[in-house]
Amino acid sequence: KKSGGFTCSHLRFGDAPIRSTYLVNTPDFVACHVAAYLRLYDVTRGLKKNGTFLLNSPWDAEETKKHLPDNVKAYLAKNNISFYIINATKIAHGIGLGNRTNTILQSAFFKITGVIPYDLAVEQMKKFIVKSYGKKGEKVVNMNYAAVDQGGEVVKVEVPAEWASLEGAQFELPKDDAPAFIQDVVRPINAQIGDDLPVSVFKGREDGTWDQGTATFEKRGVAALVPVWKPENCIQCNQCAYVCPHAAIRPFVLDEAEQAGAPADMAQLKATGKQFAGMTFRMQVNVLDCLGCGNCPDICPGNKNGKALEMVPFLGQEEEQKNWDYCVESVKSKQHLVDVKSNVKNSQFATPLFEFSGACSGCGETPYVKLISQLFGDRQMIANATGCTSIYSGSAPSTPYTKNEKGHGPAWANSLFEDNAEFGLGMVVAVNKMRDRLAGLMEKGLACDCCSEEMKALFVEWLNNRENADATVAIAEKLVPMVEACTCDICKDINDMKQYIIKKSQWIIGGDGWAYDIGFGGLDHVIASGANVNILVVDTEIYSNTGGQASKSTPVGAVAKFAAAGKRIRKKDLGLIATTYGYVYVAQIGMGANQAQTLKAIREAEAYDGPSLIIAYSPCISHYMASGMGKAQEEISKAVECGYWHLWRYNPALESEGQNPFQLDSKEPQWDKFQDFLKKEGRYTSLAKQFPEQAEELFHAAQDNAQWRYNTYKRLAAASWGAEVKE
Amino acid sequence: KKSGGFTCSHLRFGDAPIRSTYLVNTPDFVACHVAAYLRLYDVTRGLKKNGTFLLNSPWDAEETKKHLPDNVKAYLAKNNISFYIINATKIAHGIGLGNRTNTILQSAFFKITGVIPYDLAVEQMKKFIVKSYGKKGEKVVNMNYAAVDQGGEVVKVEVPAEWASLEGAQFELPKDDAPAFIQDVVRPINAQIGDDLPVSVFKGREDGTWDQGTATFEKRGVAALVPVWKPENCIQCNQCAYVCPHAAIRPFVLDEAEQAGAPADMAQLKATGKQFAGMTFRMQVNVLDCLGCGNCPDICPGNKNGKALEMVPFLGQEEEQKNWDYCVESVKSKQHLVDVKSNVKNSQFATPLFEFSGACSGCGETPYVKLISQLFGDRQMIANATGCTSIYSGSAPSTPYTKNEKGHGPAWANSLFEDNAEFGLGMVVAVNKMRDRLAGLMEKGLACDCCSEEMKALFVEWLNNRENADATVAIAEKLVPMVEACTCDICKDINDMKQYIIKKSQWIIGGDGWAYDIGFGGLDHVIASGANVNILVVDTEIYSNTGGQASKSTPVGAVAKFAAAGKRIRKKDLGLIATTYGYVYVAQIGMGANQAQTLKAIREAEAYDGPSLIIAYSPCISHYMASGMGKAQEEISKAVECGYWHLWRYNPALESEGQNPFQLDSKEPQWDKFQDFLKKEGRYTSLAKQFPEQAEELFHAAQDNAQWRYNTYKRLAAASWGAEVKE
Ligand SMILES: Cc1ncc(C[n+]2csc(CCOP(=O)(O)OP(=O)(O)O)c2C)c(N)n1
Ligand SMILES: Cc1ncc(C[n+]2csc(CCOP(=O)(O)OP(=O)(O)O)c2C)c(N)n1
Ligand code: SF4
Ligand code: SF4
Ligand code: SF4
Ligand code: SF4
Ligand code: SF4
Ligand code: SF4
Repeated sequence: KKSGGFTCSHLRFGDAPIRSTYLVNTPDFVACHVAAYLRLYDVTRGLKKNGTFLLNSPWDAEETKKHLPDNVKAYLAKNNISFYIINATKIAHGIGLGNRTNTILQSAFFKITGVIPYDLAVEQMKKFIVKSYGKKGEKVVNMNYAAVDQGGEVVKVEVPAEWASLEGAQFELPKDDAPAFIQDVVRPINAQIGDDLPVSVFKGREDGTWDQGTATFEKRGVAALVPVWKPENCIQCNQCAYVCPHAAIRPFVLDEAEQAGAPADMAQLKATGKQFAGMTFRMQVNVLDCLGCGNCPDICPGNKNGKALEMVPFLGQEEEQKNWDYCVESVKSKQHLVDVKSNVKNSQFATPLFEFSGACSGCGETPYVKLISQLFGDRQMIANATGCTSIYSGSAPSTPYTKNEKGHGPAWANSLFEDNAEFGLGMVVAVNKMRDRLAGLMEKGLACDCCSEEMKALFVEWLNNRENADATVAIAEKLVPMVEACTCDICKDINDMKQYIIKKSQWIIGGDGWAYDIGFGGLDHVIASGANVNILVVDTEIYSNTGGQASKSTPVGAVAKFAAAGKRIRKKDLGLIATTYGYVYVAQIGMGANQAQTLKAIREAEAYDGPSLIIAYSPCISHYMASGMGKAQEEISKAVECGYWHLWRYNPALESEGQNPFQLDSKEPQWDKFQDFLKKEGRYTSLAKQFPEQAEELFHAAQDNAQWRYNTYKRLAAASWGAEVKE
Repeated sequence: KKSGGFTCSHLRFGDAPIRSTYLVNTPDFVACHVAAYLRLYDVTRGLKKNGTFLLNSPWDAEETKKHLPDNVKAYLAKNNISFYIINATKIAHGIGLGNRTNTILQSAFFKITGVIPYDLAVEQMKKFIVKSYGKKGEKVVNMNYAAVDQGGEVVKVEVPAEWASLEGAQFELPKDDAPAFIQDVVRPINAQIGDDLPVSVFKGREDGTWDQGTATFEKRGVAALVPVWKPENCIQCNQCAYVCPHAAIRPFVLDEAEQAGAPADMAQLKATGKQFAGMTFRMQVNVLDCLGCGNCPDICPGNKNGKALEMVPFLGQEEEQKNWDYCVESVKSKQHLVDVKSNVKNSQFATPLFEFSGACSGCGETPYVKLISQLFGDRQMIANATGCTSIYSGSAPSTPYTKNEKGHGPAWANSLFEDNAEFGLGMVVAVNKMRDRLAGLMEKGLACDCCSEEMKALFVEWLNNRENADATVAIAEKLVPMVEACTCDICKDINDMKQYIIKKSQWIIGGDGWAYDIGFGGLDHVIASGANVNILVVDTEIYSNTGGQASKSTPVGAVAKFAAAGKRIRKKDLGLIATTYGYVYVAQIGMGANQAQTLKAIREAEAYDGPSLIIAYSPCISHYMASGMGKAQEEISKAVECGYWHLWRYNPALESEGQNPFQLDSKEPQWDKFQDFLKKEGRYTSLAKQFPEQAEELFHAAQDNAQWRYNTYKRLAAASWGAEVKE
């Protein structure tokens, strides 16, 4: 998880220094900082007899007793545990510390345990507060002082002896109708007891393959606010679904039978578009997987009566989940009725094969990844660089990549940070070799007595169209059942390789740290190779996953790790570099600025028979945007409007038609908005606070550079092309 | 040595397979294939009693006895060695095999030793010949058959018993007035007895530093033909010296005293140019270090009576060496009388600090390296990638980098193939840090009571001009003696750092394999960093040092290892990529095409306060040019004329003046000569021979790509610049 994940700290005390680094398995003291964890994890596991348990409880003593699960109750009673509670969350909010409960709980710890005299502990904690926050002013110091003081207000809760004899006194994972893999492997790992799994549960997975779509079983329900759909204002544009970073809001189209089976209160609209005649439309929110970012209402155009989405508290929306379940389980995708690649609206009728990733709420990267999965997902092979993309795409046991109704989904793997482009090239080379072998088999099949004429016709069709994705999909549909049924040796061999009948869509995905810096040598080598790969660079202008180090993509003036006084050199123009080859498709996109251009670029890139590179502007929590991550899409729009980011495409295919391959898609920027843009992002404003003079200078340099870049693009777009090119 | 180096093969025979890989120290049989080695190496070292010695001798038996050194004679006699000779060189020439004596000597070996019956050996050798050369036709096979047959014509030479008592019977290295390091370390290593050196001879060199200028002590004298100067035709243009890959021909300017001391027959001309009033000019060949490539007469314009240089047999020119010695030892450099950076002619009055490298005769890379040493050598720090550049620049014990009269020369080191740019950046960063420290010392010095006012004035001057190379040179000249004399602590510290007073000229040198491929990620990072480094890429369009593998610089259609059927993808435009940063000085040069542009680009690159990248077209033996390496310069000229290579410069400094930074220096190519150009290089013609149809197609693709590139350059050169650029 990129945020909101589980953390467990192990701490040892002693009179002599302790240098061992192993975990504490039999603690004297356990503190549980989140009440919800009582049911998710075995919180008292290993706690010593006569030990202590502290709970950050939202309830008073009596209420707490009611909420405590039986396994915890029994453990406390059987082991003579001293049980304390404190409502640290309430205290923190009360003194203005927001969600920061740490100091309160630390003070509570000292109060309860007496590892050192409490007065001394308070004195030391306060000294440390002055040291840490002194510079931030008296107010902050005082808030933290209050946290220390109120942390002493722990309440001891008496543990009734009869708890010891409670039934079901063992911590147990939920049992439901989830697949065995989820129950036997994924949930234990998520519950932090993966180490206890026997090796045998991994039988059949020795090569490391992992089931897809495990993220959908987490249903975390962590959003405080979730969107509610107001059908009366909805124009069925699907933009909300397009931008959702978590695939948690989707349009469903219901035919008559599906309408009839739907929950009674599940509102629907008459679906627009003649291909949907007689059907209804519903924009469905998945409240348990929504991260409450707010991008969907923000982008929603609504109609004259207002927006069709509104953020409301999660509590009260739980019932929406049954509507979601109905739509997902009982409403068939209608994507075959439209050309999903033709426009933004249609693209969202395609089921995402990347859903509910653990990216930060509102992440600017994931909407691109999700969209690609909608367009090509069941043919996708993905080489993923290390970075946020790899963490939210594949942190075992959780993977958001999933399968469609046919059981087809993307193949995904992560090798290293530095070799990702090469890794992806290897995939392509391997697949091509296998497909060559398949071609050999089909050629042999043409001379075979056993294979039917119908099969032979399909062989010929495949041999002539193996690089045409749609054609291979159609062929596979007909051919696979035939080879499965045939008994000749050739068909047996073809059957072993049937996964290669359909043309793959090779993707190489990573962040700017990978693409501009550490993996650049490889990326260059791969685009130079001319291989048919599609590279997506989600550009946060920073090493996001490791906390915000500067990359060669970081613009002048931005504050980043290793660039604490503002980056001094220009942002590298990775896209322009790639155009120098002349045979590489290149695009710079920004979803929030031009949804159609984003779609078009991705489509063109994939269709281009050669290397493609897409650089996608991606707002990130490390940008510290004043408007918050819920305005990520709007931020992209502003970035393009003011000239901070430019949209363009370079399509070598145009050149062969005598046209200029370079197309500048963004309008002449409103440069007067440039400085304002910078002043709305913490990565820039923090420089202005710390080094005001240098900030002034660097911010102007940033604008100069952006203008310089834009001029370069204008020059390219204006160049006379056709006339000069000789064939 | 890149060619003509010493090789010693060790071979073991036995009835059972031998798998050990150690060297043979006590052979039964020794063959010496080059008579000159008799004096250079201890050829009979370890040869067993009653063993056999075979000499490829240019003489008959009696003459051979006369030429045999005493140590060999004594060894043969004392150890009852059977001594055989054969004139394999003469035989090879006779049957049309040129210098290829191997088969002849192999046959001789079998004849003498009888390790297997000679008839069987002959049979097997002939079988192998058919296998190896069958495809090349009957003529080649027959020549090799003849080699086998005539190899049997070895002659046994009787060894007089009295040789056993000869004086000076030990192999000894020459003793002369060479520096101790040369006598004690360099020569033993060169004579293949480096392993016998005691560790103590390396005392004081524990960190791996090595004396400069060791190559000059080799005086190999391996050229068959050397140039002779005809003063009457000479116009004193110095182009011959400019292009010499081996720094073996140089102009000397003699004042009256030097004229008086010169050998009587040493012809001179009245030196042109008023700065040389009263002086004479001589173009002096170093016949022992000349590799006989022929580039100097080829480039020589001469006057209406013809060229002023002519290749003549080395035998007969030995006497020239005393003239060279006189010029080098007794004629002072007159480079201070001219601005050596102002034009090609003047540049050659500067003493090269890179001389007599072991590059192949006529190598296209070394003239650039040499020129840079003339312009900046005594301030140069060089990070060198692995490749030909590192082999000819620093194969211990031989280094061509040397010192000037003041004892100042370049500092050179090679780290790895893949990290060279980073290595050079590290040098710059380190030097800058040291100079900052020096600045701190001088600032302290300004407040010191001990430092004189004169010194303080120099401190101030340095602090204001530390990045101005000429100024720092002048300051150092005055300041160093003063700090050496001063006793205060500050001056002691300054003295410790005096080597940093003069501004360094940082160079990063390597081949295209390094720059376009394996070191590209680092190169990109270094140019992006904005650091003031100068990068020279000697572009042979191939991995030359390892035998000609294709790199991303290899153009379409060229045959290379890993591209045996012709390279399929376009040459990468490394220079254009570098221009995308906007703050990198970039140039593509080709010495033979435009000597002045080469000089100008190197000068501008070094002067530019930021990263500079120079890509220099470099003919190489792996190009298999029909005209041979003696026409390397002319080949460059043809490459530019036909559009195969383009000359241009991108100078960011121009942009700040509102001008277009891109300048196209080569004229509209004569495209109709393009195909002819390809057809004169074996790397292309071999494709035409093996795959004629593909060749046709690829050669046209090569031309298309070259035109495409030229069009890109033209578009850049034509772009309207000043108008659009906002400051
Ligand atoms: C060779 C190597 N260096 C460093 C790391 C640590 N590391 C993992 S992800 C990452 C940053 C990735 O940044 P970026 O490519 O920009 O992707 P983002 O997280 O921004 O999506 C780093 C430095 C690593 N895994 N491998
Ligand atoms: C990482 C690594 N790979 C391979 C080699 C072997 N190697 C040494 S030099 C060289 C080729 C250098 O080619 P280039 O950079 O074009 O220089 P040139 O020899 O042509 O001047 C290679 C492959 C090496 N030293 N290190
Ligand atoms: S609030 Fe954010 S996560 Fe939730 S549905 Fe809307 S866009 Fe998706
Ligand atoms: S963005 Fe708003 S109007 Fe458009 S489909 Fe979504 S809810 Fe309806
Ligand atoms: S890119 Fe930024 S917002 Fe997205 S997951 Fe990474 S850190 Fe979070
Ligand atoms: S022949 Fe070649 S090596 Fe000899 S002096 Fe002339 S250019 Fe130099
Ligand atoms: S190139 Fe010829 S004319 Fe010019 S200096 Fe040399 S010898 Fe003289
Ligand atoms: S670049 Fe070519 S010619 Fe020069 S030393 Fe290397 S192999 Fe020889």
